[in-house]
Amino acid sequence: MDGVPQPTIERLVIYYRYLKKLVAHDDDKVISSLDLGHSVGVSAAQVRKDLSYFGEFGCKGVGYNVSNLKKSLEQILGFNQNWPIVLVGAGNIGRALVNYPGFKVMGLNIIAIFDCDLDKIGNRVGGLIVKSNKEIERVIKDKGVELAIIAVPVDEAQGVAEKLVKAGIKAIWNIAPVTLKLPDNVLVYYEDLASSLVTLTYRLSQKRLKARSN
Amino acid sequence: MDGVPQPTIERLVIYYRYLKKLVAHDDDKVISSLDLGHSVGVSAAQVRKDLSYFGEFGCKGVGYNVSNLKKSLEQILGFNQNWPIVLVGAGNIGRALVNYPGFKVMGLNIIAIFDCDLDKIGNRVGGLIVKSNKEIERVIKDKGVELAIIAVPVDEAQGVAEKLVKAGIKAIWNIAPVTLKLPDNVLVYYEDLASSLVTLTYRLSQKRLKARSN
Repeated sequence: MDGVPQPTIERLVIYYRYLKKLVAHDDDKVISSLDLGHSVGVSAAQVRKDLSYFGEFGCKGVGYNVSNLKKSLEQILGFNQNWPIVLVGAGNIGRALVNYPGFKVMGLNIIAIFDCDLDKIGNRVGGLIVKSNKEIERVIKDKGVELAIIAVPVDEAQGVAEKLVKAGIKAIWNIAPVTLKLPDNVLVYYEDLASSLVTLTYRLSQKRLKARSN
Repeated sequence: MDGVPQPTIERLVIYYRYLKKLVAHDDDKVISSLDLGHSVGVSAAQVRKDLSYFGEFGCKGVGYNVSNLKKSLEQILGFNQNWPIVLVGAGNIGRALVNYPGFKVMGLNIIAIFDCDLDKIGNRVGGLIVKSNKEIERVIKDKGVELAIIAVPVDEAQGVAEKLVKAGIKAIWNIAPVTLKLPDNVLVYYEDLASSLVTLTYRLSQKRLKARSN
């Protein structure tokens, strides 16, 4: 299952969210790939292709049992596991993530938040108290944490990342807009908020140019 | 230029950021696709392919003039334009985005933040005062805004999106984890924070399974 493309995984989360809404209304419902795709804005063929990476689901011409498909996706995506996560950086973005409601239902559990700023250490964020960066290693080892979020300023990100990896972190979600240099066996996912927005301004620019040339 | 893939645009932003750092040190520097790629974690072939969508850059075997390439990217990505943006939702994420330092250098300028919560309206966020949702249409029309960010709870997102489109918005960056139903000519980019994290837990799960089976 290693060759599953990133966008497929992201779409599985979207399918999951929609199925969860359906199950709340009717547990025995069956849905076609056409209806599922239509509801979340992708084609039926895309739905079938995304699911095909993980074996057989549903019956041809009948569709998917909503409840069963939801359970399969939970298993594939690891939502039935508990993922303790540490977050470094108690700035605006860090605080927002601790309070983000969408994580817990997926087994994602931010158990500690760290900062090096003495003015922030000791403050309450959601249900957590901001700890000093000096405690990063101890907490990660004590709790066996493998996943970390970096939400510190650009200049601090590389140092923090190295500290996390040294303590045993295997995967990093990096929100600082900078490329990290880490051993190949560490998984890194970059979340670049500005580049998402730039995608839209780029597409708007293209539309304007096209409108002018017509 | 319409067929340029999304990941290419996102990588151009990453190249741009790196080139900007280089230009600050030495304006006349030349860089090879190999060095540029290596510095940001992609292959030389990927760099060349990404740039090839936009014509000829640099000389074969010589490399790119850093300063010129940076200027070209600014133009391609629209950073030399000013993009006024409205943001709806003054919760944690909304407030974090208003204060996010990475936007302004790319011409992205959040000029207004709205909420329907009377407790939030009138509060200061960064340099802005939270306005009532009732003022959305007036502000968008007065300032000719085309780009909006939705950072409201899931249940409110569709209503807010329709209001924005009616007022003249052409592109939406949607941070609420829900699929919007909007006319085809409206560009929508979904930022699903949970699905980014799930990508990592999925990959970690796979690594564990693989380790066990070895």
